[in-house]
Amino acid sequence: MSSFTKRVHIKNRKHKFEVGERPGTINIPDDALPPQIVIYSFNETDLQTREGSDMKTITQQLKKCNEHTHWIKINGLGDAKLIEDIGTFMGINQLVLEDVVNTHQRPKFDEYDNYVFGTSRIIFFNDDNELVNCQFSGIVKDNIIISFEESHKDYFEPIKIRLQAGKGIIRTAGPGYIFYALTDTILDNYFVVLSQIGDRIDQTEDKLYESPDKSIMFEAQQLKRTLIVIRRSCWPERDKINDMIRSESELITKDVKLYLRDAYDHCIQAMDMVESYKEVTSSIIDLYLSMVSNRMNEIMKVLTIISVVFIPLTFIAGIYGMNFSHTDEHGHVIPDNMPELYWHHGYVYAIILMLGIGVGLLFIFWKKGWFNKL
Amino acid sequence: MSSFTKRVHIKNRKHKFEVGERPGTINIPDDALPPQIVIYSFNETDLQTREGSDMKTITQQLKKCNEHTHWIKINGLGDAKLIEDIGTFMGINQLVLEDVVNTHQRPKFDEYDNYVFGTSRIIFFNDDNELVNCQFSGIVKDNIIISFEESHKDYFEPIKIRLQAGKGIIRTAGPGYIFYALTDTILDNYFVVLSQIGDRIDQTEDKLYESPDKSIMFEAQQLKRTLIVIRRSCWPERDKINDMIRSESELITKDVKLYLRDAYDHCIQAMDMVESYKEVTSSIIDLYLSMVSNRMNEIMKVLTIISVVFIPLTFIAGIYGMNFSHTDEHGHVIPDNMPELYWHHGYVYAIILMLGIGVGLLFIFWKKGWFNKL
Amino acid sequence: MSSFTKRVHIKNRKHKFEVGERPGTINIPDDALPPQIVIYSFNETDLQTREGSDMKTITQQLKKCNEHTHWIKINGLGDAKLIEDIGTFMGINQLVLEDVVNTHQRPKFDEYDNYVFGTSRIIFFNDDNELVNCQFSGIVKDNIIISFEESHKDYFEPIKIRLQAGKGIIRTAGPGYIFYALTDTILDNYFVVLSQIGDRIDQTEDKLYESPDKSIMFEAQQLKRTLIVIRRSCWPERDKINDMIRSESELITKDVKLYLRDAYDHCIQAMDMVESYKEVTSSIIDLYLSMVSNRMNEIMKVLTIISVVFIPLTFIAGIYGMNFSHTDEHGHVIPDNMPELYWHHGYVYAIILMLGIGVGLLFIFWKKGWFNKL
Amino acid sequence: MSSFTKRVHIKNRKHKFEVGERPGTINIPDDALPPQIVIYSFNETDLQTREGSDMKTITQQLKKCNEHTHWIKINGLGDAKLIEDIGTFMGINQLVLEDVVNTHQRPKFDEYDNYVFGTSRIIFFNDDNELVNCQFSGIVKDNIIISFEESHKDYFEPIKIRLQAGKGIIRTAGPGYIFYALTDTILDNYFVVLSQIGDRIDQTEDKLYESPDKSIMFEAQQLKRTLIVIRRSCWPERDKINDMIRSESELITKDVKLYLRDAYDHCIQAMDMVESYKEVTSSIIDLYLSMVSNRMNEIMKVLTIISVVFIPLTFIAGIYGMNFSHTDEHGHVIPDNMPELYWHHGYVYAIILMLGIGVGLLFIFWKKGWFNKL
Amino acid sequence: MSSFTKRVHIKNRKHKFEVGERPGTINIPDDALPPQIVIYSFNETDLQTREGSDMKTITQQLKKCNEHTHWIKINGLGDAKLIEDIGTFMGINQLVLEDVVNTHQRPKFDEYDNYVFGTSRIIFFNDDNELVNCQFSGIVKDNIIISFEESHKDYFEPIKIRLQAGKGIIRTAGPGYIFYALTDTILDNYFVVLSQIGDRIDQTEDKLYESPDKSIMFEAQQLKRTLIVIRRSCWPERDKINDMIRSESELITKDVKLYLRDAYDHCIQAMDMVESYKEVTSSIIDLYLSMVSNRMNEIMKVLTIISVVFIPLTFIAGIYGMNFSHTDEHGHVIPDNMPELYWHHGYVYAIILMLGIGVGLLFIFWKKGWFNKL
Repeated sequence: MSSFTKRVHIKNRKHKFEVGERPGTINIPDDALPPQIVIYSFNETDLQTREGSDMKTITQQLKKCNEHTHWIKINGLGDAKLIEDIGTFMGINQLVLEDVVNTHQRPKFDEYDNYVFGTSRIIFFNDDNELVNCQFSGIVKDNIIISFEESHKDYFEPIKIRLQAGKGIIRTAGPGYIFYALTDTILDNYFVVLSQIGDRIDQTEDKLYESPDKSIMFEAQQLKRTLIVIRRSCWPERDKINDMIRSESELITKDVKLYLRDAYDHCIQAMDMVESYKEVTSSIIDLYLSMVSNRMNEIMKVLTIISVVFIPLTFIAGIYGMNFSHTDEHGHVIPDNMPELYWHHGYVYAIILMLGIGVGLLFIFWKKGWFNKL
Repeated sequence: MSSFTKRVHIKNRKHKFEVGERPGTINIPDDALPPQIVIYSFNETDLQTREGSDMKTITQQLKKCNEHTHWIKINGLGDAKLIEDIGTFMGINQLVLEDVVNTHQRPKFDEYDNYVFGTSRIIFFNDDNELVNCQFSGIVKDNIIISFEESHKDYFEPIKIRLQAGKGIIRTAGPGYIFYALTDTILDNYFVVLSQIGDRIDQTEDKLYESPDKSIMFEAQQLKRTLIVIRRSCWPERDKINDMIRSESELITKDVKLYLRDAYDHCIQAMDMVESYKEVTSSIIDLYLSMVSNRMNEIMKVLTIISVVFIPLTFIAGIYGMNFSHTDEHGHVIPDNMPELYWHHGYVYAIILMLGIGVGLLFIFWKKGWFNKL
Repeated sequence: MSSFTKRVHIKNRKHKFEVGERPGTINIPDDALPPQIVIYSFNETDLQTREGSDMKTITQQLKKCNEHTHWIKINGLGDAKLIEDIGTFMGINQLVLEDVVNTHQRPKFDEYDNYVFGTSRIIFFNDDNELVNCQFSGIVKDNIIISFEESHKDYFEPIKIRLQAGKGIIRTAGPGYIFYALTDTILDNYFVVLSQIGDRIDQTEDKLYESPDKSIMFEAQQLKRTLIVIRRSCWPERDKINDMIRSESELITKDVKLYLRDAYDHCIQAMDMVESYKEVTSSIIDLYLSMVSNRMNEIMKVLTIISVVFIPLTFIAGIYGMNFSHTDEHGHVIPDNMPELYWHHGYVYAIILMLGIGVGLLFIFWKKGWFNKL
Repeated sequence: MSSFTKRVHIKNRKHKFEVGERPGTINIPDDALPPQIVIYSFNETDLQTREGSDMKTITQQLKKCNEHTHWIKINGLGDAKLIEDIGTFMGINQLVLEDVVNTHQRPKFDEYDNYVFGTSRIIFFNDDNELVNCQFSGIVKDNIIISFEESHKDYFEPIKIRLQAGKGIIRTAGPGYIFYALTDTILDNYFVVLSQIGDRIDQTEDKLYESPDKSIMFEAQQLKRTLIVIRRSCWPERDKINDMIRSESELITKDVKLYLRDAYDHCIQAMDMVESYKEVTSSIIDLYLSMVSNRMNEIMKVLTIISVVFIPLTFIAGIYGMNFSHTDEHGHVIPDNMPELYWHHGYVYAIILMLGIGVGLLFIFWKKGWFNKL
Repeated sequence: MSSFTKRVHIKNRKHKFEVGERPGTINIPDDALPPQIVIYSFNETDLQTREGSDMKTITQQLKKCNEHTHWIKINGLGDAKLIEDIGTFMGINQLVLEDVVNTHQRPKFDEYDNYVFGTSRIIFFNDDNELVNCQFSGIVKDNIIISFEESHKDYFEPIKIRLQAGKGIIRTAGPGYIFYALTDTILDNYFVVLSQIGDRIDQTEDKLYESPDKSIMFEAQQLKRTLIVIRRSCWPERDKINDMIRSESELITKDVKLYLRDAYDHCIQAMDMVESYKEVTSSIIDLYLSMVSNRMNEIMKVLTIISVVFIPLTFIAGIYGMNFSHTDEHGHVIPDNMPELYWHHGYVYAIILMLGIGVGLLFIFWKKGWFNKL
């Protein structure tokens, strides 16, 4: 539970930019990771894998199998030179390259003359149970798809496995299908994150019903903020997929669009879950606040009833604790100043008076319904 | 009332999926029920009913009466093989089959080349008074409609009865009409659920006016959450029906569209009721909170008035309970240190002083309007 | 005021329906009133009025003056046979007849091949000051308009009077104009209801400023709920009128559309008033809650100041009420254990000490600004 | 400040109408002012001014200068006959005349065959600092513009002055330009009102920071309501101006439309200011409520700390105020029942005990952070 | 931190205008700064800079290099004559000039026959840490762009530097590109402001978790208001950029539109950040309020438990402090009126009784769960 109550940071790495600088300038943040390149070149029968971290590896591999479909997978954006070289080699606009390294893009899909460009938000809980929100971007041109990720995490492992298995149309449907498959993997991970959040909500709700304490408020706020982060990725992702479906680029084939329609449904389902969870979280907060306020009510009621019953009684005791006295010339008390004190059963009468007042007050409160639970 | 205060679980069965797996993969949840198949084959004059649980039953029956309209009713989705066989036999896209078994679809309507596909949410209170939210899906192709349900509950009994009666156009209007009739039955059940919720709201409201207690907050939150579940089904259902009305598929005939317009109105009516009920529920919560706060006010006021009246009186009694004394050499008290104590009517004066202060304070509070009900 | 604080019931008569029954089935609720029929047949020079309660009256009258415009006014929907006969005679779709008797329709306007159909919500306060929300529906075909109302109330009296007077175009503009006139009368009544609500809001506001009590919260909630009912009728009414203006049916003539534009403006004005009133009601609730909280503040402040001043004083009195004593062998008190008690002016010193503490505390609180009104 | 705290009445004069009456009926409210007519007839070189209060003045003046542009300015709508005469003379639809006298129109712009009609809301603070919300309407036909106002206030004085000066295109641009100029003057006055409200908001905010009291809540609510009135006029005014810009009537020339675009911008600016002011007002309320709650916290904390420290001390004093005693046969006290009382330094010990408890409790509270400001 | 808690003033300079004055009138506010003019004339190879403050400088420079692109940068709007002269010289509509000097425009983009006009809001924190919100406007015609700013601050320094460097297309892409570059610089500054706000939010959040006090509420409100100011600029800025992208003016070339698409994305990103920050700020306020309320709960609980335990104990002490006595004729006490007082171990019994009651009450409260943290 300890890792659960960690603050969710919504700020990832800070923007690094100069005011008014030339658009298309490629600024690499200081803590960006060095790039790791893996190239998958494949056709129906063949799959080649080649690793490297410089431009040469790429150009060699592309030349070698120029009829294959290539998926150039780049993890780590720490090398401005490499990214510019890729841009030049592929004929990519500087503004697109800027978007690749400026990792605060909203999901979007842009069509250019002979290539398409898209970004998504990759969201997962890391091993320290922190919510990570980093950027994926992809460029599709001719028979090539280049994917860029911020981290070195092997996020797209399942796609690699599917490529190796070679079942279905994954090796034959072109780079647009790979782009779809990557997007779909990202969406699948949204459901993983949402299911983890769902479990936490369940835990929090159980706690609310079983042993509520003030951490609930805190946890619910954290969950809400996590959900807001996901929603902020999900909404533009939906628009992006919609743009892809409506795209007139031949890189997004009709077959791929059919699958994208499916991804579109998944995206809406994820948004639906986010909204549900947000509402559940809100109702947890409402119920918790109502429980706190009921608790306060109960405490106040007990305090009030006990106070109000005892205040007059203590006052009476105080009266008969007064030292009014009248003494005769011998210093002997003459029982006429507080005559009750000298009555034979004065004490018993006083006790009876007090009991009467106490019971009377309790009766009045019972009549007023103060003993009902409200 | 006990079953009433059950928690509403909005999570049905968990998603079962692998991140990044091939789209169209059919994953059957472990707790899915085995399929029960009933085939109704009918034309204007004939109605045949055939039960089974495998593919053979279906193919035999379809061959036998190839001029009839067939309604293949499948309850239970626990047999991946069967569903794939149906898919192959009917020529249905894998993605559609995935949607059939992944029972978290939003209501939607998709047109394909020669068939249409739709899903709805079936919502009802089960015998344990729990809200069940499960999936209906239907495929219409040629003269066949296949309906899939998660549960074994005989939800579409009324349609069976209407088929047996054979009145109206139900036997002659084709599979599209059956699809409409199933959708309409689902909508009718929304009204049943809403009417049950309406009764519960009435009970809660009666309780609010007659014997409010803290369960009201809880119950209102539960009702609200139930309404949210229904609304989440109702909105996309409306869009789905609208898509059907605008569909250009010849499986949805012009006659059926007239009826769908009617179903569309019902759907909006249901949404309207949901919104009404949500507002009533909110106003119950507001009124309850206001009653609680009024109660607290009243209690605080009584406490304050009694405390504030008695605090000075008790202080005076305390003063005259002090033991200041001045004794002469004989140890006799000389009445000059607290002379009031030795006055002849000192006690009476003290009582009058106290009464005066008490009445004075009450008068001040009355002047300030503290006895008015706010 | 007593009738004012009645609960507003938003549920009218319950839906009566069977799940999954044949669409177009005419279910008459058990408490539906028997129909009263009045037929107004008129042209520029002539106006005939005929009353009855069966189909024969209608057919006779229609035959008798087949060149006249006919307004068949039916109050009470308790006769399924009659309604079906009218449907058959006029050639009306079963679904339309179902909408006529199922009195929970939202305002809508539907065009059919040779007739048009519209519904509205009639809203008024009845003699018991309860908000009644019942259904009006109208069918216009050829030279005939049939109007259906749930109640026997003579709601359209003013139209009857205008028909009798025969001024303006009411007798010559055809049944579409009568339909407009009925709709406009319903809208006029919205203003009547809104003006009654406006008066109640004024009363509540006056009460808030003059003698606020806890009924204000209750009354404001009731008003809010009433306004919600009206808004729910008003919004679709606007859409309905808009549909009529855009209608291509020749039953809604160009002249009538000019008047409908006017009705459309009225409808928006009514919605505007509803929104205004809702905002005023909300601000009444806010102000009331703020007054309650201010009151609590004031009370708490008085309690605190008095308590905090007297608590130390009472403690001091308690100290000098202790019985510590030191006696010599003669049982005489030796004034060395609580020497203050035996000082000559000990009592006066104690009183001065207490006064000092009291005044000091008051000064501190005054410094802290506790005497300012916050 | 006294006039400031006046209630803002959002209801102006009451609707006067009969339910179901003939559309186009002209009902003059009883308190309507008698009309004052001023006719300005002008061309590039000439400006004639003529006053009157009947139809004859108008017809004479129109005949006399039939080539001039005429602005017929009518203040006061108390003469039904006059308005009907104008309607007949100008050939204006009855529904338009009804809108002129029914002074609850939303701003709108309607085009008719050969004339246009528009309304606006005139909003200002009168000399009693009350918010006045009355109606302006204008009819433009041929070379004539007729303007109607409810009040006798000389609201359009600046236009008169500009006409007399004759600079710019005001005398030559036709009646459409005059209509624009009137609308623009009304918009300019919105800024005057908004600037007065801005000053009041500043005053209220200063008060909040310097000497907050409970009038702030009240004042903020009043300001909010005033802003709502303005917003309600501003939004449809924007639509109206937009309708004018898109109008195809030749009465609204292309030149005028350029100016209307400017007026449109002003309208949006006014709406922007309204929204800003509403948000500032809301944040004033939030801050005030938070200050009140902080004040309560502080008071409660002082009460609690003082109570909790003194309650055990007073209890101890109470214990040693008990009269338990054991007397020997001589009536002399034997110091064995409450032996502490008879210890030599018992009193000092008791004082030390009390001090210890008091300091200990304060230490505990300090440890718990109760002395921190939260 | 002191400058942080400054009030954010959303009102800049006051509107200065006369109601109903001629549109296009140029009113210079009294505190407007005198204009400083810098003209940058450049082509691919040449860059000339010329400073001045009158019309002559401009005309001379334009004539001198009539093939160059000119950027006339005007800081300070205090000279009505100059602005009118520029308007006349360039052939600019009076209404545009009015918008230039009336510095309360929302961002907008207007196309005229042969020139375009746009405004933006420049937002930054000045050296006193106050939020400044002033106006930028630009006119593009032929080969000239004129930029107007309210302040003398050298806001566009980076553009000057880029012009001097002459890299990229800045010197060759025409005045439309300069207009884009200025707009983009303004947008870049939004991110600077947002990043400062982000830091403040972090500080406030740290404070919330580490040493919460009541300044948090205040600071969060200030941050919220700042964010509202930025959002109000950002939204219309987006629309403005969109209008520029869709503009058909040849002054906004296709190349520039590509860059504008990039600026459009930045604008949406800024809006996204504003929304994120608003939500974080709201959740800070919620958490703070919940902490305050938890604190109050804890304090109330301690008060209640201590009070409720000691109230009955003090009452018992009060009882045995009563002076009921019965004396024989010798003035000797006969121990029968309060016999407990004279029991041998009465005092010990009383102490035991008190301890028992105290422990019993604590046990009851523990049972009720009052010691749990809620």
